[in-house]
Amino acid sequence: MTALPIAADVIARENEARAKHLATDYAALGERLARRGVDIAAITKKVSAYTVAVPSWGVGTGGTRFARFPGKGEPRGIFEKLDDCGVTQQLGRATPRVSLHIPWDKPKDPAELKAKAESLGLGFDAMNSNTFQDQLNQQCSYKYGSLSHTSTQTRSQAVEHNLECIDIGKAIGSKALTVWIGDGSNFPGQTNFTRQFERYLEAMRQIYAQVPDDWALFIEHKMYEPAFYSTVIQDWGSNYLAVTSLGPKAKCLVDLGHHAPNANIEMIVARLIQFGRLGGFHFNDSKYGDDDLDTGSIDPFRLFLVFNELVDAELRDPAFHPAHMLDQSHNVTDPIESLIRSANEVRRAYAQALLVDRKALEGFQDANDPLMASEVLKDGFRIDVEPILAEARRQAGGAIDPIATYRASGYRARVAEARPASGGSGSGIV
Amino acid sequence: MTALPIAADVIARENEARAKHLATDYAALGERLARRGVDIAAITKKVSAYTVAVPSWGVGTGGTRFARFPGKGEPRGIFEKLDDCGVTQQLGRATPRVSLHIPWDKPKDPAELKAKAESLGLGFDAMNSNTFQDQLNQQCSYKYGSLSHTSTQTRSQAVEHNLECIDIGKAIGSKALTVWIGDGSNFPGQTNFTRQFERYLEAMRQIYAQVPDDWALFIEHKMYEPAFYSTVIQDWGSNYLAVTSLGPKAKCLVDLGHHAPNANIEMIVARLIQFGRLGGFHFNDSKYGDDDLDTGSIDPFRLFLVFNELVDAELRDPAFHPAHMLDQSHNVTDPIESLIRSANEVRRAYAQALLVDRKALEGFQDANDPLMASEVLKDGFRIDVEPILAEARRQAGGAIDPIATYRASGYRARVAEARPASGGSGSGIV
Amino acid sequence: MTALPIAADVIARENEARAKHLATDYAALGERLARRGVDIAAITKKVSAYTVAVPSWGVGTGGTRFARFPGKGEPRGIFEKLDDCGVTQQLGRATPRVSLHIPWDKPKDPAELKAKAESLGLGFDAMNSNTFQDQLNQQCSYKYGSLSHTSTQTRSQAVEHNLECIDIGKAIGSKALTVWIGDGSNFPGQTNFTRQFERYLEAMRQIYAQVPDDWALFIEHKMYEPAFYSTVIQDWGSNYLAVTSLGPKAKCLVDLGHHAPNANIEMIVARLIQFGRLGGFHFNDSKYGDDDLDTGSIDPFRLFLVFNELVDAELRDPAFHPAHMLDQSHNVTDPIESLIRSANEVRRAYAQALLVDRKALEGFQDANDPLMASEVLKDGFRIDVEPILAEARRQAGGAIDPIATYRASGYRARVAEARPASGGSGSGIV
Amino acid sequence: MTALPIAADVIARENEARAKHLATDYAALGERLARRGVDIAAITKKVSAYTVAVPSWGVGTGGTRFARFPGKGEPRGIFEKLDDCGVTQQLGRATPRVSLHIPWDKPKDPAELKAKAESLGLGFDAMNSNTFQDQLNQQCSYKYGSLSHTSTQTRSQAVEHNLECIDIGKAIGSKALTVWIGDGSNFPGQTNFTRQFERYLEAMRQIYAQVPDDWALFIEHKMYEPAFYSTVIQDWGSNYLAVTSLGPKAKCLVDLGHHAPNANIEMIVARLIQFGRLGGFHFNDSKYGDDDLDTGSIDPFRLFLVFNELVDAELRDPAFHPAHMLDQSHNVTDPIESLIRSANEVRRAYAQALLVDRKALEGFQDANDPLMASEVLKDGFRIDVEPILAEARRQAGGAIDPIATYRASGYRARVAEARPASGGSGSGIV
Repeated sequence: MTALPIAADVIARENEARAKHLATDYAALGERLARRGVDIAAITKKVSAYTVAVPSWGVGTGGTRFARFPGKGEPRGIFEKLDDCGVTQQLGRATPRVSLHIPWDKPKDPAELKAKAESLGLGFDAMNSNTFQDQLNQQCSYKYGSLSHTSTQTRSQAVEHNLECIDIGKAIGSKALTVWIGDGSNFPGQTNFTRQFERYLEAMRQIYAQVPDDWALFIEHKMYEPAFYSTVIQDWGSNYLAVTSLGPKAKCLVDLGHHAPNANIEMIVARLIQFGRLGGFHFNDSKYGDDDLDTGSIDPFRLFLVFNELVDAELRDPAFHPAHMLDQSHNVTDPIESLIRSANEVRRAYAQALLVDRKALEGFQDANDPLMASEVLKDGFRIDVEPILAEARRQAGGAIDPIATYRASGYRARVAEARPASGGSGSGIV
Repeated sequence: MTALPIAADVIARENEARAKHLATDYAALGERLARRGVDIAAITKKVSAYTVAVPSWGVGTGGTRFARFPGKGEPRGIFEKLDDCGVTQQLGRATPRVSLHIPWDKPKDPAELKAKAESLGLGFDAMNSNTFQDQLNQQCSYKYGSLSHTSTQTRSQAVEHNLECIDIGKAIGSKALTVWIGDGSNFPGQTNFTRQFERYLEAMRQIYAQVPDDWALFIEHKMYEPAFYSTVIQDWGSNYLAVTSLGPKAKCLVDLGHHAPNANIEMIVARLIQFGRLGGFHFNDSKYGDDDLDTGSIDPFRLFLVFNELVDAELRDPAFHPAHMLDQSHNVTDPIESLIRSANEVRRAYAQALLVDRKALEGFQDANDPLMASEVLKDGFRIDVEPILAEARRQAGGAIDPIATYRASGYRARVAEARPASGGSGSGIV
Repeated sequence: MTALPIAADVIARENEARAKHLATDYAALGERLARRGVDIAAITKKVSAYTVAVPSWGVGTGGTRFARFPGKGEPRGIFEKLDDCGVTQQLGRATPRVSLHIPWDKPKDPAELKAKAESLGLGFDAMNSNTFQDQLNQQCSYKYGSLSHTSTQTRSQAVEHNLECIDIGKAIGSKALTVWIGDGSNFPGQTNFTRQFERYLEAMRQIYAQVPDDWALFIEHKMYEPAFYSTVIQDWGSNYLAVTSLGPKAKCLVDLGHHAPNANIEMIVARLIQFGRLGGFHFNDSKYGDDDLDTGSIDPFRLFLVFNELVDAELRDPAFHPAHMLDQSHNVTDPIESLIRSANEVRRAYAQALLVDRKALEGFQDANDPLMASEVLKDGFRIDVEPILAEARRQAGGAIDPIATYRASGYRARVAEARPASGGSGSGIV
Repeated sequence: MTALPIAADVIARENEARAKHLATDYAALGERLARRGVDIAAITKKVSAYTVAVPSWGVGTGGTRFARFPGKGEPRGIFEKLDDCGVTQQLGRATPRVSLHIPWDKPKDPAELKAKAESLGLGFDAMNSNTFQDQLNQQCSYKYGSLSHTSTQTRSQAVEHNLECIDIGKAIGSKALTVWIGDGSNFPGQTNFTRQFERYLEAMRQIYAQVPDDWALFIEHKMYEPAFYSTVIQDWGSNYLAVTSLGPKAKCLVDLGHHAPNANIEMIVARLIQFGRLGGFHFNDSKYGDDDLDTGSIDPFRLFLVFNELVDAELRDPAFHPAHMLDQSHNVTDPIESLIRSANEVRRAYAQALLVDRKALEGFQDANDPLMASEVLKDGFRIDVEPILAEARRQAGGAIDPIATYRASGYRARVAEARPASGGSGSGIV
């Protein structure tokens, strides 16, 4: 059995140095919340139960078309990736599931992979297919599309790949397949929108037919990139058309960075929930486009507003459980650190949304009192819930300050030695 | 019987001065089109049959929240508005229908209004309700919403108003009701998105139930303004949810200026056509938001791309006939001139789209030849079709150069005398 | 002498009900800040000294081009406006200056106006000219521009108006003139950009020549609206060209809602400070365009990032004192309430920025540690500084909870009786 | 001496098949232009003299961070790149200069490179430095910046690289250096905007000092990417600050795809011309961001509006000669075809702008007649100038239909054999 990657005494030592101040801050916040009839322990418990998946590719260093600047100790395969994910989970206690990307994470022996994950306290989230790159020795190229390609042969190849992802997923205990394609066009006229969408739906029906009944099929929309004039599933409207064309197992997946400038994403989330089609999220943050920055780093209030909808939906329907995953590109930070803090940001937004006085909010909404309604909502956002988040980690055996503890552990330096750089150039594609 | 507003001899004289050059240019273009197997006469006939409605409010001067600068001779009521629409139609021969806005255009005697319109060669297009302003002596205010208001009484009032619009429409021969509401919110928290949308749908169901079977109910979406944080029907996705919740008479109406920055509008149009829910258009142009500028003045290629979808759909299904209306705010131009030229721009885009070699286009699309596919499409756009547009007008009794003819007619000066300025201040609402 | 508008005992009573919890929260926060070496009393003092001007038009109800829904008890003239501003200042203690808009606030007797203001504890901020509307009996229209109009006569009229604003300002103790014009164009070709800018600069030079040496001339840029294709001072680049063409008294004024989608406003602020040309701010918030929503209501982190630059600049140069004003359109709230809370949001952002550990921040920046640098910055933002803001108000004689106190005072109901509605229609300009 | 890459008889044969129709169309257009007093031969001559540079990297296949799908026969070094550029020039006669990118195009023997270029009828345009990727064996990494890096050593390395570019440029006859850096930050707080800009300016001053007196130093701004929160030269305002800080040899370079959504680029161009700081252009087109699509493929009217400013400036000052280069990423087309057509689009926009009746335009502008002013401008755009462009090519020895001629020549198949694929994976950087 694999030992957990960070030594227990490092965590204990780091926690001890912070325990007293945490207790003070947690008590002060508890007193303040009690005043408004909120039990901090109950909130801490809910937060503790709230987790988010990490993608296997998230522990590698990302880049742009201009360049990639590799970090030290990058994982060289799915087993090393799991080690890194194990660190994230061990310290943050918020990321107990990993989402695989095929073909890169394709296991020779699924059972071995499963055992490795379990030894690290990890399970598996949705499977991710990839038909936006060509692999060596691949018969048909995806240069001009995959599931929506004009050629039947190419579409079949892409369908087959997705079916393989389902098979692997079954073997390791996954319960969902996420399909995102880069298909689209770069120029007006390059493709006929209608015929292209027909081809896409036809291919997706073949995949859908093989999705197990207890699985979900997540479709992810994105406004643009890699295609720069049109994209087959360009927005939530097209996504909704697709999932309703397919059937009840199909759900929309919302990536926070895949929308038009100025879009009201929280409203899109509300609409999809209302019509029973929100499947889950890819969390990240962005200022310009699909920037894939760390969740909550650019517009934390927007993240909170999304969680405000989720908590609202949860109260309406306790069975509502969308999938949550971080999907970020860590270009300039240590990926492990970014994942830890981003998972914490997701929990922060959740905790803040839980603290909103919903009865008062509804009252002000019904009374058409916009000022007080917005104040009640922002009041939840303004509360500094870090003591709750830290206490949830502490109680679960994680680190009060996971970044500091990670740095103190020397993990990165250790793996940097064990995993020599590939020497691969960081040249981008301009 | 009302005489047509522009004297026939003015048109004749102005046309005579331009007839020879038009004939030359039409012949040269005809020869060039013949080379590629296109019959210019057939195209001219199709263009001639292509018309677009004008809104009654379009003949008045528009403004912004900062100011309105009234023009001379503004129409003071629906009868004078019809006169101005009559000029537009007489000279341009592309705008034979007028779309009314209630309460402003509410006729005392519908029969009289109908007769007046007929004498000018005009009919009536969709009815437009208005619940985004308060009228004097109105019982409930729309300050906090209309069809989605928290109060049943306010929603009922808004429903009643729409039913009245249907009644008026029946009396004058309209066949559609267009519903656009300003409901939304200015602040996060001000409204609960889900409950607001439920109230909206409940109210719309009451209206839908009264829509005659041979009518269409058009729902118009808009990203923002007058509400600045959220809008009930904020995009085509929500619009689609609404129309499919209501029934087959309900269709989506696309206003070109109501989308997020960078949105691929022609693709939205294609999606709505494909799923049988495109009802029609409000044509205008914009650079920033809902600018309501003259159609084709900012991005003529985008307008062409929309018409490329329409011609594509027309070929697929000859019964496809969406509604077309100009919806512009004429802040700095003579509204009659802007309407004439904008209708001409709509026809220009249609003519250009007709000239696309669709067989070649489809071939290049299927062969994944993006460069040639986009060239074939742009080739249609590049053709200067003005000779076709002018010839279509000439053949129908309109003006070869309608703007010059309008100016030569002295119409504006005449009505400026007959319609003294109201003295109403042009103060905006900052 | 005018008594302050809110009775002292109302404030006392309301404060008494909240004093104990404030003391608890202030002490807990003080303890937490002390741990990091920060003296809460010193911060409270700095916050207390930080004020923001309110515009005279801000106490009226705003609207959109679609409608205006008047509130109750709207002030009917500058004296009543001052009363309302007096309430804002009395309760919030953050808005001791009022910015006038000419011609509306033009006083018959400046001395009387000044005395009235002083009795309310108010002074005067920058003067605002208006050449984007036509006034009754105005000789030349601004329909096609004002300071950049093609006609010398119109430009002269606009210059004269600005000189009058300076004269009024001198009489009441103002020290700045803010010039914002709506000049631009609605269509490509309508204007020659270069010649229009030349005319603008020529007119501004005439104004600049009359600006007193101890005044500032603020130029405000805006991307669009009321002009919808181009605007003379469309962005900070053109603004910078203008102020450097004029001279040292001219400075750029940044309105947070006047930028392109996705613009990094805090970086623009930094650039203008670095090159000595930042004059001041119009604070508000926006999701789409120039929404003029309450400051901090849509993106509070962005507001904080702006203040992060201001605090950084303050440390670099203690003499750095840009002008601060709220510029909002209160369409659905009580304007007094919105002004009170918005001033509080400005202070909140300032307080949060003061709490950033700048030494640690600089260290992480120099060490290229993006994760820790961003965490240190966000740490300041996450602190709930409301106890500091409330304590600052309390110490200055204001209200711990100014909105609740305002509502308890019954002020709005009182003025609603004293100021009957004008009966003016709320019709917008579509 | 190298023979030109396309056999002369292929061009002759292809031209012969099209000569008759071209003559007809050219004559018809000539007659129509003559009517308005325009001599088509004079326009053809001006167009013929109008050229645009191509970048050496433009003949390779581009990609996105998600994938790169290599084309056939990609050039393996600067000599093969020149061959491909030679084809573009031979057929299109619009691209006689190549812009090099160092380190990739660094010649062992500049004289040999120059001779090769001359044999193909090519010269050299601006030199392009590269400090946004790391090269093998590079001492300091640019992961956290180059010219603005916190470390003196890294900045010096970046300065040295630029000085080397100047040296190479001198040897081959270049007259300009273009500097674009990816420096910026991904998170608020990561960098101090002001100190970073100071470091950038300090480094640029060192480069500027070595720029020969008869050279220009072009600085290129870009809103975002590869950095996703802030970029050092983020817009034309910062660009203007930089060039004016440096001196008269420094000029702003405008890439059409590097602006905020909705930005009025033609106005930015006008402002930079007016203040003497427009250095030149990187032409391409975009719908969303820095899409680097083929020039004129998405918004041809915008391209025309930019050329409208250039022609306006040319008339004002005949000595005005900005630099023109295509900067596109050819992800799905044959790069040679895209370059040929894009150069043609640049010429098209120029020809259309030349045909605008500027006297009439100015008259309508001065008369505040927006409708006619915009009509006069659009009239130039609507003219199908392809006969002029084709005739200009024909007269210069190029191809009437360069794409068809290129395909007929079999060039791509020939080089595909001579240049075997590198086998490099097309994997992107997600």
